[in-house]
Amino acid sequence: MMKNSTQIQPGRRARAATSLAVIETRELLIRIGMELLTERGFTSTGLDAILKRATVPKGSFYHYFKSKEDFGYHVMQAYDEYFRKKLDRWLQDEAVPALQRLRNFVEDAKHGMARHRYTRGCLIGNFGQEVGALPDLYRPAMNDILFAWELRVSACLSAAQAQGQVAQGADCDALAKYFWIGWEGAVLRAKMMQQPGPMDVFLQGFLDGLPT
Amino acid sequence: MMKNSTQIQPGRRARAATSLAVIETRELLIRIGMELLTERGFTSTGLDAILKRATVPKGSFYHYFKSKEDFGYHVMQAYDEYFRKKLDRWLQDEAVPALQRLRNFVEDAKHGMARHRYTRGCLIGNFGQEVGALPDLYRPAMNDILFAWELRVSACLSAAQAQGQVAQGADCDALAKYFWIGWEGAVLRAKMMQQPGPMDVFLQGFLDGLPT
Repeated sequence: MMKNSTQIQPGRRARAATSLAVIETRELLIRIGMELLTERGFTSTGLDAILKRATVPKGSFYHYFKSKEDFGYHVMQAYDEYFRKKLDRWLQDEAVPALQRLRNFVEDAKHGMARHRYTRGCLIGNFGQEVGALPDLYRPAMNDILFAWELRVSACLSAAQAQGQVAQGADCDALAKYFWIGWEGAVLRAKMMQQPGPMDVFLQGFLDGLPT
Repeated sequence: MMKNSTQIQPGRRARAATSLAVIETRELLIRIGMELLTERGFTSTGLDAILKRATVPKGSFYHYFKSKEDFGYHVMQAYDEYFRKKLDRWLQDEAVPALQRLRNFVEDAKHGMARHRYTRGCLIGNFGQEVGALPDLYRPAMNDILFAWELRVSACLSAAQAQGQVAQGADCDALAKYFWIGWEGAVLRAKMMQQPGPMDVFLQGFLDGLPT
């Protein structure tokens, strides 16, 4: 009994440690993919740059992902998950009036971009710019992702409507769609100019234009 | 005399033909640069792809441009020149009410994108996305270019103001800045979705939000 028990314990521990290492390496690759792909986009980012930053050998990479295409797809899904949480954190903050939540989200985005010295924009925006060079399955995934983000802004605008900050007759879905189209432009322009101004200009213009 | 004259004539003609060929080859390279860089951006476009499409040998390229960096800079300037003419054509069309001019510009942009099956967006937008990887002198040039485009939209909005379509107190420069931030997002999204919808949504949202 004792023998069996002591034999099993280290075995379990070793297997657990291996599983953890597998998860950690995969997560590390995804995290570095998110960093590099939000900086440089898909086409310009070589697998070598990712492996070098992660200090993971190429053979090991193919243990986790079938190809760069497969990797990019998972990076995109991870970015979406990260970003939905961020949106929910700000836009569902019921302690704050609804339009202020949108302002808070923009403030957070400004800090995020400044922290990375405006080298990183939006992964989906980057991918959009180079979509012609991307695998075909990326495009519908990108549309789904943006749609999910739009829903969150639409819900926030509906809350603003309930609070009397937006006109009753306003189409919040349409306004949210308009917001995301322009917001991606604002992030792009902030990256281009290396300053937060365009994000402020866009938010103010959007809020000023809301039907009240 | 006769001999000199006949000797000079073909020489002149040959020199003229050579100058023409020089101009034509340079213009051809710029035109192909505009095509490829609006499709793929700067980083992803190899010099080889440009030379191949132009059927110009590499040695010959360096007769016209110092480097890919120098080439990209001139492509950007040529794109700006082309685009300013396009803006002036639509936005200064005094036969048309001012806000309709903006609608006409958007219609033209939609046709342009459809014609190229949404593979081409805006060269400056593309460059903005990858600005971190671009030569330093590109950034101020891009800002100057966008500023010149903003001025044209601002003038159009001022005309709309004079025609009573925009409120007297509205800041047309600020609105034009807002327009260009969002418009680049609309072009990006249209490219991403391979359809004109985002350009319509953006224009409508912008016009709906104008102070009247």
